[in-house]
Amino acid sequence: MPSEFDLIERYFNWQQPAKGVAQGVGDDAAILNIPNNQQLVVTTDTLISGVHFPEQTPAHAIGHKSLAVNLSDLAAMGADPAWFTLALTLPEQNPQWLNEFSAGLRSLAEKANIQLVGGDTTKGALSISITAMGLATAQNILLRSTAKDGDLIYVTGTLGDAAAGLAVIQNKLRLNHAEYCIERLNYPQSRHHESSYIRQYATACLDISDGLLADLNHILKASGVGACLDLDSIPLSPALSSLQKEQALQYALNGGDDYELLFTIPADQQQAFEQEVSRRVLVCHAIGKIDESFSGITSSQGRVLVPQGYLHF
Amino acid sequence: MPSEFDLIERYFNWQQPAKGVAQGVGDDAAILNIPNNQQLVVTTDTLISGVHFPEQTPAHAIGHKSLAVNLSDLAAMGADPAWFTLALTLPEQNPQWLNEFSAGLRSLAEKANIQLVGGDTTKGALSISITAMGLATAQNILLRSTAKDGDLIYVTGTLGDAAAGLAVIQNKLRLNHAEYCIERLNYPQSRHHESSYIRQYATACLDISDGLLADLNHILKASGVGACLDLDSIPLSPALSSLQKEQALQYALNGGDDYELLFTIPADQQQAFEQEVSRRVLVCHAIGKIDESFSGITSSQGRVLVPQGYLHF
Repeated sequence: MPSEFDLIERYFNWQQPAKGVAQGVGDDAAILNIPNNQQLVVTTDTLISGVHFPEQTPAHAIGHKSLAVNLSDLAAMGADPAWFTLALTLPEQNPQWLNEFSAGLRSLAEKANIQLVGGDTTKGALSISITAMGLATAQNILLRSTAKDGDLIYVTGTLGDAAAGLAVIQNKLRLNHAEYCIERLNYPQSRHHESSYIRQYATACLDISDGLLADLNHILKASGVGACLDLDSIPLSPALSSLQKEQALQYALNGGDDYELLFTIPADQQQAFEQEVSRRVLVCHAIGKIDESFSGITSSQGRVLVPQGYLHF
Repeated sequence: MPSEFDLIERYFNWQQPAKGVAQGVGDDAAILNIPNNQQLVVTTDTLISGVHFPEQTPAHAIGHKSLAVNLSDLAAMGADPAWFTLALTLPEQNPQWLNEFSAGLRSLAEKANIQLVGGDTTKGALSISITAMGLATAQNILLRSTAKDGDLIYVTGTLGDAAAGLAVIQNKLRLNHAEYCIERLNYPQSRHHESSYIRQYATACLDISDGLLADLNHILKASGVGACLDLDSIPLSPALSSLQKEQALQYALNGGDDYELLFTIPADQQQAFEQEVSRRVLVCHAIGKIDESFSGITSSQGRVLVPQGYLHF
């Protein structure tokens, strides 16, 4: 059977632009050149079969999603994608599966202009761990701890679609446009284009992986503030809008796997930001306001909103 | 049950020197400052329970070994350890196991002066994937592709102990000093101290993880040369020396998990290097010579040596 070396050669050694890479795949480690005026931004995310994606998920989608969730973290930090390493654990060598996985991974890597520089393949239960590295200038970095009283709260895209797609796959939900929601679950799109504008205005940012309320709470706790959400402003896709309002909101508020950006804009920057959004045709919606006079999240209708986000343990 | 965030806070948020870290654990990604005159060296290695360590291995040793195998790659490149990320997949949250794992990891991290800057915890079959980052100046980098005709071949330490330790655990071998060999299997010591001197003289280097012959072949193929080994010069520990010579050589030539450095020194540098070895009390032995007149490996007694190194698939 082919060795690890052959496996990497065969499936993961595609032609790539050698962006700052002095030594890529094939030695004990990769060697990378970091531009003088930039910081290195590093994130790691692991996807486990049956936990982070349904076991029947197509290999192409798994390849895409493994990288997308890491790209989303870079976008949330205001960093531009540069390089990644892949630790791939497989129960068996299945050439068709590896071809499709590799194609899904490569397609997104090329689109996002991020380069595979190293990896490790091991035998075991299917699991994909990617470490992504990005570059950012200090003034563009977005933290979660820097939201301020009076900031407007925004999200990109629409919320809850991926969770609804998972419910459809699990036979817990019937839905018009079910295919759209399953696509949103399997092929999350990291928001790098939006991030490149958002970072010029935002005070704080993160990506929504555990659900809007759970992730908003991370910003609130780190920044020592509270938030008031206008539930009528939460952006919903046509698919979710076809559900009863309260059911759709449940998916939008607590559903994971959206990988949309959640960020805060100072009130005095709102007009300039909205003009940028309009000029660049970015999909962003204001959904509430930061308020330091209380902690936690309430709705503008006075409801206390408690996260029921998904926790792996 | 505690969330991923609590888990990281509780077990992996120990006090560390903030070496070039603008943002550590706790945001979407870590932010790192790279010195202007240095290159970033990045490596990833995954350890799977039952594949890379026996299932009954103590958690403390697993914590140590997960980092050690990555540190060994950095040493093999001539890079100084700087930062690492941890992707930890656990079947359950066992506080005692986590405490011991964390202690083993931390102890080596502090000794090697490498800082944990991010991670991800997921639920599944026990697996540990670490991405280690080091710093190196371009002139100190050691590749595997640059061995030259006439170079002397050296190794650090002794070979075959870890493989003999594994054979003892698997009841395939009885041995004097069995505990020593099991310790070598569970607590590999990466060769950073040696690397800091070796990189001033060596033409090529890698670390021995698959076995001496298999890993020597990686140097030979990458450099387009052959090698002649003096089997009587292969360094053996007292434990392995107590075996029959041929059996001991089997472990030393083909046993994995040694994590010793294998490197080449130009003949005209040998005297200066040997003086350095003697002055620094480094444990290094010359075991053969690079020869471009043939490919593959022979012994000085004329035997053709074919790797039987361990492959995961």
